[in-house]
Amino acid sequence: KINPDRLWESLMEMAKIGPGVAGGNNRQTLTNADAEGRALFQKWCEAAGCTMGLDQMGNMFAARPGSDPDALPVYVGSHLDTQPTGGKYDGVLGVLGGLEIIRTLNDLGVKTKHPIVVTNFTNEEGTRYAPAMLSSGVFAGIHTQDWAYGRVDAEGKTFGDELSRIGWRGQEEVGARKMHAFFELHIEQGPILEAEGKEIGVVTHGQGLSWTEITITGRDSHTGSTPMPMRKNAGLGMARVLEKVDEIASSHKPHAVGAAGHIDVYPNSRNVIPGRVVFTVDFRSPDLSVIEDMEARLRIEAQKIADDMGLEIAFQKVGGFDPVTFDAGCVAAVRGAAERLGYSHMDLISGAGHDACWINRVAPTAMVMCPCVDGLSHNEAEEISKEWAMAGTDVLLHAVVETAEI
Amino acid sequence: KINPDRLWESLMEMAKIGPGVAGGNNRQTLTNADAEGRALFQKWCEAAGCTMGLDQMGNMFAARPGSDPDALPVYVGSHLDTQPTGGKYDGVLGVLGGLEIIRTLNDLGVKTKHPIVVTNFTNEEGTRYAPAMLSSGVFAGIHTQDWAYGRVDAEGKTFGDELSRIGWRGQEEVGARKMHAFFELHIEQGPILEAEGKEIGVVTHGQGLSWTEITITGRDSHTGSTPMPMRKNAGLGMARVLEKVDEIASSHKPHAVGAAGHIDVYPNSRNVIPGRVVFTVDFRSPDLSVIEDMEARLRIEAQKIADDMGLEIAFQKVGGFDPVTFDAGCVAAVRGAAERLGYSHMDLISGAGHDACWINRVAPTAMVMCPCVDGLSHNEAEEISKEWAMAGTDVLLHAVVETAEI
Ligand SMILES: NC(=O)NCCC(=O)O
Ligand SMILES: NC(=O)NCCC(=O)O
Repeated sequence: KINPDRLWESLMEMAKIGPGVAGGNNRQTLTNADAEGRALFQKWCEAAGCTMGLDQMGNMFAARPGSDPDALPVYVGSHLDTQPTGGKYDGVLGVLGGLEIIRTLNDLGVKTKHPIVVTNFTNEEGTRYAPAMLSSGVFAGIHTQDWAYGRVDAEGKTFGDELSRIGWRGQEEVGARKMHAFFELHIEQGPILEAEGKEIGVVTHGQGLSWTEITITGRDSHTGSTPMPMRKNAGLGMARVLEKVDEIASSHKPHAVGAAGHIDVYPNSRNVIPGRVVFTVDFRSPDLSVIEDMEARLRIEAQKIADDMGLEIAFQKVGGFDPVTFDAGCVAAVRGAAERLGYSHMDLISGAGHDACWINRVAPTAMVMCPCVDGLSHNEAEEISKEWAMAGTDVLLHAVVETAEI
Repeated sequence: KINPDRLWESLMEMAKIGPGVAGGNNRQTLTNADAEGRALFQKWCEAAGCTMGLDQMGNMFAARPGSDPDALPVYVGSHLDTQPTGGKYDGVLGVLGGLEIIRTLNDLGVKTKHPIVVTNFTNEEGTRYAPAMLSSGVFAGIHTQDWAYGRVDAEGKTFGDELSRIGWRGQEEVGARKMHAFFELHIEQGPILEAEGKEIGVVTHGQGLSWTEITITGRDSHTGSTPMPMRKNAGLGMARVLEKVDEIASSHKPHAVGAAGHIDVYPNSRNVIPGRVVFTVDFRSPDLSVIEDMEARLRIEAQKIADDMGLEIAFQKVGGFDPVTFDAGCVAAVRGAAERLGYSHMDLISGAGHDACWINRVAPTAMVMCPCVDGLSHNEAEEISKEWAMAGTDVLLHAVVETAEI
């Protein structure tokens, strides 16, 4: 069993870097705070006897050697970057839970046949640079590295330049590593485990996602002197599309969700009718045909709204992945570990995207989830208990050790 | 008659300061560009033999002496600040048209009994600092100077600090000047004159305005893992309120308008359900009871939307003025000038707010309007012809000279 106090202390130490404004964190990818968090993680890994690898996307790999020189490593980890108003556990628990496994094996003097490697994937959140899970996506061959380097943030800074600037652009070719298996521990970010009173979620599937960036172009004009019939109000067009997004997602109850979190209005002046709005629609479902249906209906309905109002509309897909079925063997290892350790558990579909969703394309993969209070995440008030963190990391330890073989 | 080429040249010179991105201007109030525009205007006024006064709100007063030492001056002018994506004529034509009158009277060697003073009022646009017409409002005793100094922009900088920073905070007490009359020339910013084929609008009234800033608070949470029934989507709440704004304004056809030009969404991340939105609703009508009805219905309807969705909502009035009836004598002077000069003209209600609307509270006031192409304003593509500028300034000259007496 792992040491819950040591794990908790590390979580609280990391949370001091890039503090938020309401008790959480703002440690967005490729900021100075991200660099500081990485340095702390590296220091801890080296103190635990690991050697750190760094690839050209800034993905970090802290390796604990195995006893068989020919055996591929078992990977375990998640991400250290956060939302602009994020919590202390989203991603971080998976990385520091991985480190806690190493520390526990060191304490016990246990040597595994396969090496164990703890990872921190760059830009999982996707806020500063769309799409989410960018660097695990490059690792899995989904995106090219050049395309990823060219992603720009709201200030026009590219991913590649910012990665160099913070000093975490490595030499290693991305995706060159072969994995025996990959395990990711993560908070659920939803309400199911807490509602069902379970300590462990055995993640069998992940729902798919579609991000469509919509640009509606009307005509900037005066809010006072432009008669109502002459207006081309891009903001009102957006309002109507947002209502449709809700209607479309709700029509697939309970197996779909939809919303827009990102909305920019131009020129954003009280007495100028918006001439342009840019916003991103997020649709998800465990069922690919549902995602495809929502995407198609959105384009038709939004086009109709724009046409009726004399507005121009353009659609750009800026992120997406198909629903995921995790590896049966790895899932069984997670379920078996929970059972042996006596933790209450249930099978779960992940509502969020995770690095594990991409790594599953190139290695046998599974996820462990633990509850979070009120299902709340992507909020500074995100909270978990030390007991939940312990249960999740214990299960992770046993699934990893079983797979890495003693 | 005025010199249209000289007027046009000055308009084009001023437009070089604070250029926009699409042929217009971004010379927002209390920026370095604003300071540069003021300096150019002062240089021109001094070259025309005027002495410049500057009050504690940064309002500028360029005076041409009259022959009667006891006669109160006739004031003429508008504003030099622009929208973030504004045009070259909105406000500027009124200030430089005033200067052109002085230059013309100098050319002709005409001495008026009353002095003539050309004004540039600070922060007419209201984009950087709400409300619009802030400094003419302080001049007219509508707002206190302390309150105006404390207005903050989106970056938290106060009006008072920024006015000092750009070096245009004067010594003169605001509103201490008494005016014999005030005339403002402005582009229509709407489509009526062009549609009716008239060169001159004789502005008899101005419609009133109400700005309500609405804050809707929901709960930031994950767009993927938060089930639809658990969401508190402040962005969707806003969408529903925007639809109501349009419905309410349209119900008073054709005597009301409504829209929201300013919308900020927090934390504005693609995978976070908006926990908070702040936006400003702009309602206008020439009829005060219509404005009051729209405001009241908005509060009721928006509260209902918020209650139904489990959202918090707060309303704050951040700007407003009642409909205006301009001075009959000044209006007659404008109409008479248009008639004598043989320009086609019609009576008009101003759709926009103007410094003249506040000055009308403390001095006999009227406005002259000239057409603008497609009624387009608050847009970098705002355009007028040299002939329209000439007609407007000719009428302004004759109305002013008649009032200032030769
Ligand atoms: N786990 C998590 O919040 N990932 C970000 C990607 C997503 O939006 O699902
Ligand atoms: N003329 C003008 O655009 N003034 C700004 C105040 C308003 O929004 O009407």
